Amino acid sequence: MNYKMIVQYDGTRYDGWQKQGNTDNTIQGKLEAILSKMAGMPIEVQGAGRTDAGVHALGQTANFHLPKGCVLTEDIRDYLNKYLPEDIGILEVTETAERFHSRLNAKEKVYRYRISTSTLKNVFERKYIYPLDEHLNVKAMREAAEALIGTHDFKSFCSNKRMKKSSVRKLIKIEITELEGELQINFTGEGFLYNMVRIMSGTLIEVGQGKRSPKEMTEILEGKDRSLAGITAPARGLCLVKVSY
Amino acid sequence: MNYKMIVQYDGTRYDGWQKQGNTDNTIQGKLEAILSKMAGMPIEVQGAGRTDAGVHALGQTANFHLPKGCVLTEDIRDYLNKYLPEDIGILEVTETAERFHSRLNAKEKVYRYRISTSTLKNVFERKYIYPLDEHLNVKAMREAAEALIGTHDFKSFCSNKRMKKSSVRKLIKIEITELEGELQINFTGEGFLYNMVRIMSGTLIEVGQGKRSPKEMTEILEGKDRSLAGITAPARGLCLVKVSY
Repeated sequence: MNYKMIVQYDGTRYDGWQKQGNTDNTIQGKLEAILSKMAGMPIEVQGAGRTDAGVHALGQTANFHLPKGCVLTEDIRDYLNKYLPEDIGILEVTETAERFHSRLNAKEKVYRYRISTSTLKNVFERKYIYPLDEHLNVKAMREAAEALIGTHDFKSFCSNKRMKKSSVRKLIKIEITELEGELQINFTGEGFLYNMVRIMSGTLIEVGQGKRSPKEMTEILEGKDRSLAGITAPARGLCLVKVSY
Repeated sequence: MNYKMIVQYDGTRYDGWQKQGNTDNTIQGKLEAILSKMAGMPIEVQGAGRTDAGVHALGQTANFHLPKGCVLTEDIRDYLNKYLPEDIGILEVTETAERFHSRLNAKEKVYRYRISTSTLKNVFERKYIYPLDEHLNVKAMREAAEALIGTHDFKSFCSNKRMKKSSVRKLIKIEITELEGELQINFTGEGFLYNMVRIMSGTLIEVGQGKRSPKEMTEILEGKDRSLAGITAPARGLCLVKVSY
């Protein structure tokens, strides 16, 4: 039986989603350890987004196979929530089609990047927001974001230099929302390259600071060179919000 | 010159508000150390509420005196925010009357107690909510709360057994709000005894669980004996929301 689950985590103290051999301090590793113990055999968990170290998730989606039996989905959820640390939580577990794969079947993902734009301290949100503490020119950022929408080769926005597969991706929407003392950038896309959201966020921030012109975005895309784009914005401001199928 | 400030903190890793001699890991201690360094002389900070270890604040109010000079209130705020750890923040600093005392002049304080009432995990709010994870009978809790409103001797709701001063306090309002998977109890009062909000919360929770009847509240008050009331609810769910003058 194939199970799909929605996972939330505060990524602050983890080495990201993806399992890493022996010194494992990853979300995938924690989930597999508990499910394997529950099932009495090794269980593999596939996540929709391989979030980096320090990145959070409100709606990561993952799937795993268990031998046919009569385990209730609510019981799996409760078992996981009981044994997972308090910074990882399971919102729901549901039965899904045998061939469902959380990453390969994902149609759209939404990532949110949060930036503090006031000098006021974010005592309660400090782990989930980038403390830039500067006013940003949102109009210029929106203009720059416009140039990124659509199907492009996002090689300039990818940290993996030895990437052999295609770096063409379809970016569906970028929404920039102004809140009190905070700016949120929501990225909706079919898929994202390694560090792509953080590099897009960093570059948009530099536009907002006036360090770059919105017009540069097209050149950056066309140059297909990571060094043309801006900084990789810090992990703590990023959150995987939702995966759609 | 006398200055008033609004302070926010995540109390998780502190030994409460009030300074404690040498091994100081308190909010008051942190604030005094930085202000004393800034002023080049020992500065004392008075807080409106002496929150316990692990209790948070959205709107703690405090005051301190500095020698007459020309320090801008914004500069004091920014200096404090720069040198304070990221879990303590200053919302504002304003000049106030020379005789103003943040605790003695406080007219009303609002404390909020947050309880998780669903089995869903609170990944992002976990440090600010008591993970009871049980459904509570809110109607019974509201009836019980009613009996506490007014001016009473709250000795049964005080942890300090050697309290020599009066334990009579005026409780103005208790509001219980149901949110998704969460219950919030807001206590508005002229002043509160040591652990009073946490003991009232613990007792109201026991009413909500059906372990006590709402009618017991009057007996508990009249008994003037701590052992008659319920548990002291965990510090992490409590927050000092506001102080009015």
